[in-house]
Amino acid sequence: MLKRYLLAPGPTQVPPEVLLAMARPILHHRAPEFAALFAEVREDLKWLFQTRNDVLTLVSTGTGAMEGAVSNFLSPGDKALYVNGGKFGERWGKLCKTFGVNATEVKVEWGEAVDPQTVADALKKDPAIKAVYAQASETSTGVAHDVRALAEIVRSREDTILVVDAITALGVFDLRADEWGLDVLVAGSQKALMLPPGLAFVSVSEKAWRLAEKAKNAAFYFNFKKEREAQQKNQTAYTAGVSLLLGLQEALKMLKAEGLGNVFARHARLAHAMREGMKAAGLSLFPKQSPSDALTVVSAPSGVDGQAVYKNLREQYGITAAGGQDHLKGKIFRISHMGYVDTFDVIQAIAATEMVLTGLGHPVKLGAGVGKAEELLLAK
Amino acid sequence: MLKRYLLAPGPTQVPPEVLLAMARPILHHRAPEFAALFAEVREDLKWLFQTRNDVLTLVSTGTGAMEGAVSNFLSPGDKALYVNGGKFGERWGKLCKTFGVNATEVKVEWGEAVDPQTVADALKKDPAIKAVYAQASETSTGVAHDVRALAEIVRSREDTILVVDAITALGVFDLRADEWGLDVLVAGSQKALMLPPGLAFVSVSEKAWRLAEKAKNAAFYFNFKKEREAQQKNQTAYTAGVSLLLGLQEALKMLKAEGLGNVFARHARLAHAMREGMKAAGLSLFPKQSPSDALTVVSAPSGVDGQAVYKNLREQYGITAAGGQDHLKGKIFRISHMGYVDTFDVIQAIAATEMVLTGLGHPVKLGAGVGKAEELLLAK
Repeated sequence: MLKRYLLAPGPTQVPPEVLLAMARPILHHRAPEFAALFAEVREDLKWLFQTRNDVLTLVSTGTGAMEGAVSNFLSPGDKALYVNGGKFGERWGKLCKTFGVNATEVKVEWGEAVDPQTVADALKKDPAIKAVYAQASETSTGVAHDVRALAEIVRSREDTILVVDAITALGVFDLRADEWGLDVLVAGSQKALMLPPGLAFVSVSEKAWRLAEKAKNAAFYFNFKKEREAQQKNQTAYTAGVSLLLGLQEALKMLKAEGLGNVFARHARLAHAMREGMKAAGLSLFPKQSPSDALTVVSAPSGVDGQAVYKNLREQYGITAAGGQDHLKGKIFRISHMGYVDTFDVIQAIAATEMVLTGLGHPVKLGAGVGKAEELLLAK
Repeated sequence: MLKRYLLAPGPTQVPPEVLLAMARPILHHRAPEFAALFAEVREDLKWLFQTRNDVLTLVSTGTGAMEGAVSNFLSPGDKALYVNGGKFGERWGKLCKTFGVNATEVKVEWGEAVDPQTVADALKKDPAIKAVYAQASETSTGVAHDVRALAEIVRSREDTILVVDAITALGVFDLRADEWGLDVLVAGSQKALMLPPGLAFVSVSEKAWRLAEKAKNAAFYFNFKKEREAQQKNQTAYTAGVSLLLGLQEALKMLKAEGLGNVFARHARLAHAMREGMKAAGLSLFPKQSPSDALTVVSAPSGVDGQAVYKNLREQYGITAAGGQDHLKGKIFRISHMGYVDTFDVIQAIAATEMVLTGLGHPVKLGAGVGKAEELLLAK
C-alpha cells in the first residue's frame, strides 16, 4: 500500500468538505436556487479579489481567462508589454502573438524577479503601449514579481492597464486589486482556491472596461462583456459550471472563516518553514530573490537529477510534486504549499526530500531540515 | 419537504457512481496514473463517437468546442453555410460572424427540420463554401435534423466539411461519424454523458484536419492542433479537467456495459412513450416533424402560459424542466429524457404535467397520459 499525497503546484488538494459539496445532485443553472448560489459566490469572490468590480467566472482553466485578458482588451496591431521570467510569462507572449498584438518582451532571467524600473523605462519609450502583462507568481520558477510596484508605474498612464496572472497567487499572498490598481486579475480554481480544475476567474477594472470598448479581437466563448451582462444578473452567458460552483461556495466559506489576513499569514509561515527547512537540509533554493509563497523551488544538488527526485518522491513515497519545465528540466524540483495545506504537508515534504536524496546517494543529515521546520512551525 | 428532480435538457442527472468517482482525491494531470486514465477515456470516446479519429477533450462547455469548430477550420473571409432552425443554429451564425466568416444562412422555421435539398441547392450555388454547420438535435425546438442526409450531400465535395453540434444528440441516437461522414462532431459533458458541465468533446476527420492546415483565425485555448499533439500522448495542452475525467471514465463504463444499441433503443423507447403520453393527455407536440429523442417539447395549450407550467412543475412538484427561449417563451415547455433516465422519469414527467395543467385550470383527464406511457413502457 502506498498512500498518495498531492504537493504539486496545481491541481492541489481539495478538502473533503468541498469534494462532498460537488457530489451533490446537479443544480440547474437557470433555476432560482442557482441565482442565489451565484450571488453569494460572486460577493465572496469580490472579497477574495479585494475589489468592488465584478469578478467573472468562466468554465475553463486559467489559460482560458488569460486568453480573454488579451482578446477582450486589445486589437490586432495594438501594442503591449509583457514580463517574461518563465513558462507562464512566455504564455503572455504567445497569446499576444496569436491575437496579432505587437508585444514588447521584458526578458527576466528565470529565477529572478522583474526590476520594475525596466518596465517603467520600456513604457516611457513607447506611449502607445496599452497593456502590461505579468505574473504575480511565476509557477515555473517559484518567483513572485512585485506587481504592486508595476501597478504604481502603470496607474499614472491613462490608457494603459496592468493585467496580472494571479493563478498561483490569489489566496496565497496579499493582492489588492482596487487599492493597488491591478486592473485585470486572473485566477484559476485548482490552486489556492482548493478546487478541481475547471473554473477560471477574472476581475476587471473600469479602466480596463473602457479599453474593452475599443477592442476588436474575436472573443465569443471568452467574451467578458457578454459575461458581465449575464453575471450581473446572477446568470452566465453559457452553461454554468454548477458542480464546481457548489464546491467554490464551500471553499470560499472556509477561506472566509479563516480570514484573509490569516490565510496569507498561514501561507507565509508554511513557505518560510519550507524554505528554511530545505536550506537546513543542505539544499539551495532556485529563486535568486523574491520567492513566491505558493511553492518552493529547490535546485537539484550537483550530481543529482532533479527529475529523479520528482520521480522517487512519487514512486517511493507516494508524493506527487513537480519537476522543472523546459531548460530547467532535471535542474530543479518544485513543491507546493498553497491551498489546503498545513504544518505537516511541509514536514512531510522536507522529510521525503531528505529521504529521497539519501536514496539517490546524496549526503543529507536526516532530520536536519525537518528539525528546522519544526522549530519554525512550533505552535505558540 | 419538496424532493428535487432534474428533467431539464442539460445539465442532466448525474448517476451516484459518477458523483462518487468525482469526489475522489485529485489526480495530478502530469502523473503517470493520469495518462492511463486518459488513454482509457480516449478509446471509449472513440467508441461513443463511432470514429477511428481522435476525439479531443476540452475544459469548457459545449459552446467552447463550437467556437473551436469555427476558428480552427476557417479564416476570415472564408465562406460557410449554417442551418438555423433555433437558438443553437443561430449560435453557429454568431460564431461565424465573430470569426469573420462569410456565412450563408439556411433558415428553417422553428419546430421544423431542415430539408436537405435546400442545403444541396445552396451548396451547388456556391462552390467556395468550405464548411456546413448544423445541429443533430436542436435543443430549443426539440427537432432532430437529418445530419446523415447532410453528410451525403457534403461528402462528395472535396473541400467542404460537415460540422455537427451533437451536444444533445451524442449518446441519445445513432450518429456514425466515420460511416456517414460527420467530419466534426461536437459534444458536451452535461447531457447524455451524465456528467456535470465542464468538459467538451470534438472529433475531427482527416478532411477537416486538412482544412485546419489553412485556417488563419486566432485559436489559443481552443487550438485543436495543439490539443491533438498533446492528447495523442495522453496529455493535455493545458491543465486537464481531472475530476470530471474520473467521472467520465465511470459514465463511459456504464454506457459500454449497456451497449450503444441499447442506449439508443432506451432513449427511443422513453422518447416515444413521452410523446405518446403527452398526446394522450390532450397535448400537442411543438415539433412539426422529426422530434429529437433527447427531449420532448410540448406546446402550451391555448390559454395556458408555458412559463407557468415550467414554474409550477418546479415550485409545486420540485421538478426542474425548461421553458421556451426567445419568441417561444410562454408558448412551449421542454422536458428532457436523455442520459440517466428510465421509465419512471417519463411517468413522473407526464403525471406532473397532468397535475400542473389541472392546477392551472386546463381540463385534463388525470392518468390518461400516464396510462398510455405505462402501456408503451410495459416490461416485456
